[in-house]
Formats: sequence, structure tokens, C-alpha cells
Amino acid sequence: MTSKIDFYHAPNSRSGGTLALLEELGVDYNLHLINLKSGEQRQSAYRHINPMGKVPAIRHLDTLITEQPAVFLYLADLFAEKGLAPALGDPLRGPYVRWLVYYGSSFEPAVVDRSSKREPVAPSTSPYGTWDDVYNTVTGQLEKGPYLLGERFTAADVLWGGALHWMALFKIMPETPAVRTYIDRVVTRPAIQRAAAKDVEYAAQQAAA
Amino acid sequence: MTSKIDFYHAPNSRSGGTLALLEELGVDYNLHLINLKSGEQRQSAYRHINPMGKVPAIRHLDTLITEQPAVFLYLADLFAEKGLAPALGDPLRGPYVRWLVYYGSSFEPAVVDRSSKREPVAPSTSPYGTWDDVYNTVTGQLEKGPYLLGERFTAADVLWGGALHWMALFKIMPETPAVRTYIDRVVTRPAIQRAAAKDVEYAAQQAAA
Ligand SMILES: N[C@@H](CCC(=O)N[C@@H](CS)C(=O)NCC(=O)O)C(=O)O
Ligand SMILES: N[C@@H](CCC(=O)N[C@@H](CS)C(=O)NCC(=O)O)C(=O)O
Repeated sequence: MTSKIDFYHAPNSRSGGTLALLEELGVDYNLHLINLKSGEQRQSAYRHINPMGKVPAIRHLDTLITEQPAVFLYLADLFAEKGLAPALGDPLRGPYVRWLVYYGSSFEPAVVDRSSKREPVAPSTSPYGTWDDVYNTVTGQLEKGPYLLGERFTAADVLWGGALHWMALFKIMPETPAVRTYIDRVVTRPAIQRAAAKDVEYAAQQAAA
Repeated sequence: MTSKIDFYHAPNSRSGGTLALLEELGVDYNLHLINLKSGEQRQSAYRHINPMGKVPAIRHLDTLITEQPAVFLYLADLFAEKGLAPALGDPLRGPYVRWLVYYGSSFEPAVVDRSSKREPVAPSTSPYGTWDDVYNTVTGQLEKGPYLLGERFTAADVLWGGALHWMALFKIMPETPAVRTYIDRVVTRPAIQRAAAKDVEYAAQQAAA
């Protein structure tokens, strides 16, 4: 039905989110392991895939898709029958797109400012504002639970659950009880566990190469 | 067919992109003007709309949608018959989503770092990397032209054309000939001109209130 997906992935990196999504969707792919330690992401072969030198990237229908929220939006719609994306016309569609985009536009840059202890930009100048606003906006949403969009589990939870899991592990952000419960709910899913096991395997494969 | 959209907008701000898109789509909306100078965006009434205290926001089907790229993705799909969003299954769908998300996740944060002369984060730690990577990635794409996705004009051009227009005006970024041609191609469109005229009117309306 759909041509096979090429997936550019570095073990133990942000592209693990996409690995988890592919596992949730039950999708087969051509795996391309990128070695971040040796700087493969900045060499010209990979720059042709993503000029930003970042993973993840996927290729499908001869087009390249980069940026995690974009990869998520694209894949979950492509395999709509798996039910991880509210369809166009579903009242959850707007919030679904909102929270995926918010992850990349507001949450990640605010987290990086915080973890690298950078001087923040004046809140009114910054496209995301203060750390408190960014953090409270998403935790306020998670408190409603059980998932980001309420009762329905979506691809947005695969992204957020995995990302919050790592951030809590590295103590990059404070953990509220609602956040902890949410993380556990997501990362204990069988597909997420399978993806974690595969990532260990991919890391070993890369180390042996 | 679809219930009317509530549009939360501040004249002469980033939400002008959404105003332009609504004009391109020919969509009617309930306008809510937010006064950024008086700090209305941080008062509790508006915090109920967007806890981030930012415009734009839209409300549709009793749900709230924030973050420009999300608002764009949502609206262009909602009014699919206007042809501003490649449909699911169209080979341009992936690049379309990619470039909209890239605007929020990589371009805006890099522009803000640059315009506020902040110390950059180590490229490998930053989700977007260096200014050069961010800038060259999009200008490289625009050089292929005439639009971001090639021959087809999409909602992504409404966002990018407008944003690059402002950045060039305020000399926030260097202007290549390809970038200039692209900006002109977008901002001279009748709908974009109409939106600009409406924004002047909305600013006057707000000043008179
Ligand atoms: N904005 C990008 C961020 C991706 C990103 O930061 N990837 C990291 C992996 S943790 C990377 O490739 N880093 C390699 C490097 O820059 O050296 C996205 O959403 O996909
Ligand atoms: N990440 C947001 C950024 C929106 C944004 O920065 N909006 C500005 C308008 S220029 C704002 O509302 N600023 C008001 C303030 O923070 O005081 C988006 O993509 O919508």
C-alpha cells in the first residue's frame, strides 16, 4: 500500500521517539544508523538527508521529513487505521496538532535554555516565554489525564511520554505526581518497551560496526 | 458546515500570519483583539484561552489551538477545498508538514537567539544547532523556488513569506536575492495585501477602544 519508510536513527537520542512510534504503529522500515559520536550527522552524505545534521529523519515517497513533531504528524496520519491520530474533522484534531507542535516550538527550546543555564530572553520577546509558563502549560494539561488529550491515547503521548521520561531521569525538570503517573502510563506500554529493547540492540550493532 | 472560528489576534504581531491565512482561505471569523501593550495577554481571561499568554490562538469545535504552525496545519486542512494544504497521501504532504514545524521548532528560536545576541548553546546540544545551519537550510530550499515546496503555493508560504518579510524589514537576517524574490512573490498576493489593510484597521480599532 505505502512504500517502505527509510528511518535515520541514532541509538540513545531524540530519534528514539520515532522508533517508539514506528513500533506503536507496527510499521516496517529500512533502518539507517547514524553515528553521532563519530560526527556522521555532519558529514556530507547525511547533510543531503537533513542539512541540519540532526536525527530523526525519514524518507517516504521520495521526500524527506525532518523535525520530530513533523515526523509524528506525518506517520500517524499515514497509518491512520492504527488510530493514533484523531482524523481531520474530529474535535481532538486541533489539540492533537497543537500539543505536537508545542513540543518542538516551546517545550524543547525552553528545556535547552534551562538545562544549559542560559540567560532567558525577555518573556515578551521570546516565542515561548518563561520556563514556568512553558512547564505549567503542559503539566496543567496532563493533570486532566489520563492522556494529553484526555481519554484517548495518541501519537502525541508517544512523543511527550518518552521525552518527559528522559527529562525526569536526567533531572532536567521537576517531577509532579501527575507527570510521574503519566510517564509510567506511557513507558510501560508493550510497544514502548519493545522499542527500548530494539534501541539497545541497535546501539550494540552500531558499536560492533 | 463548520462552526465559526474564534480568532485571538493582536495587530502588528506574529498573529498577523494567521490573519493572512484566514484571508487566503476566505474564512469568516469572530475577531477578539488582544491588547499586548496593556498586558491583556497575561491577564487571567486570556490565560484561559492560552496559558502561555501568546497570540495567535483560535477556538473551533469548542477546542483551543495555539502555536502558529499548529493553527496553520489545522486551518488549511479544515478548508481543504481551498487547496492550501497537500492532502494526506500527496507526496508533498511530508515536506509541507516538515517546513511548517521547522518554522516553529528551529527557525524562530534561532532568530530570537540571534536578534537578542544570546550566547548560543553548543550545536550538538541545541535542538536546532547553529544559525548558519538553520538559515542555510531554509534558504537552500527557497533557492529551488518559486515556492517552498516548488511549484505549489501552500499555507507554508503564507507563514514563511510573512515572517521573512518582517525579519528582512527589521534587518534581523541577511537577505539573499532568492529570499527577496520569494518574499515579494508572497506579500504581493491580493489576499496578503487585504490582510495587511485589515490589520491597519484592527490596530486603529484597538487604539480607539
Ligand atoms: N528540532 C529537531 C531536533 C533533533 C535533535 O536535536 N537531534 C539530536 C539527537 S539527540 C541530534 O541529531 N544531535 C546531533 C548533533 O547535532 O550533533 C527535531 O525535532 O527533530
Ligand atoms: N510559539 C508561539 C509564539 C507566539 C508569540 O510569540 N506571540 C507574540 C506575538 S508577536 C506574543 O503573543 N507576545 C506577547 C507577550 O508575550 O507579551 C506561536 O508559534 O504561536
